[in-house]
Amino acid sequence: MPSDEIDTPFAFDGLDRVFHERARLGIVTSLAGQFDGLLFSQLKKLCGLTDGNLNRHLSVLDEAGYLLIEKCHDGKRPQTRCRLSDRGRSDFAAYLTALEEALRQATRAAERPEPLSPNRHQLREHPA
Amino acid sequence: MPSDEIDTPFAFDGLDRVFHERARLGIVTSLAGQFDGLLFSQLKKLCGLTDGNLNRHLSVLDEAGYLLIEKCHDGKRPQTRCRLSDRGRSDFAAYLTALEEALRQATRAAERPEPLSPNRHQLREHPA
Repeated sequence: MPSDEIDTPFAFDGLDRVFHERARLGIVTSLAGQFDGLLFSQLKKLCGLTDGNLNRHLSVLDEAGYLLIEKCHDGKRPQTRCRLSDRGRSDFAAYLTALEEALRQATRAAERPEPLSPNRHQLREHPA
Repeated sequence: MPSDEIDTPFAFDGLDRVFHERARLGIVTSLAGQFDGLLFSQLKKLCGLTDGNLNRHLSVLDEAGYLLIEKCHDGKRPQTRCRLSDRGRSDFAAYLTALEEALRQATRAAERPEPLSPNRHQLREHPA
């Protein structure tokens, strides 16, 4: 374990915020399952996002170098197709490994907390 | 599976943003492991946060009803002790169940993507 993980075991630095944000986790999961990528309209539906939100999150992913974006046409209608870049795919795999470890730590903590010591008094629910 | 999960399988609505944000996931994991709670100074160190950031995230958790906060003294120095409320503990358990399912979906997608169809052309890495 690197020394910074010993000093700050719950900093979870491996959880790349670009992937970790909930909407982007959904977008990247959708794209990870499709080598061919997905149309903007398909992503919107799968992730339950508005045009504006999806555009904003795709920009973040694109700026990180995680996307390949293609403008295409379906008859007269312009369409946007997105897929993960090789870097997006490999960095997402590393993120998932970090997430698995964070989940393991959190589950262990939640299931087996240190017991309440007998000399500790009750904390107030709503401090004044 | 509820109908909205069928319609939007990657919306990940069960991932409560109060817990999901990376720093707060570290804070709540730290607290979940201690029925007694932790001092502000201990949380800062475990999570690698500044005073300002820790304060900001504790406020979000407190507003959601997930914390018990106690002001105490160590000799002359005022101290703050935090621990998870019963609601914080039970909602965190539900969040961890949702996170486990999201991780399972993401890992499955990343490991077994649909293959590239032969009639799809290569997407541009940096579209004009």
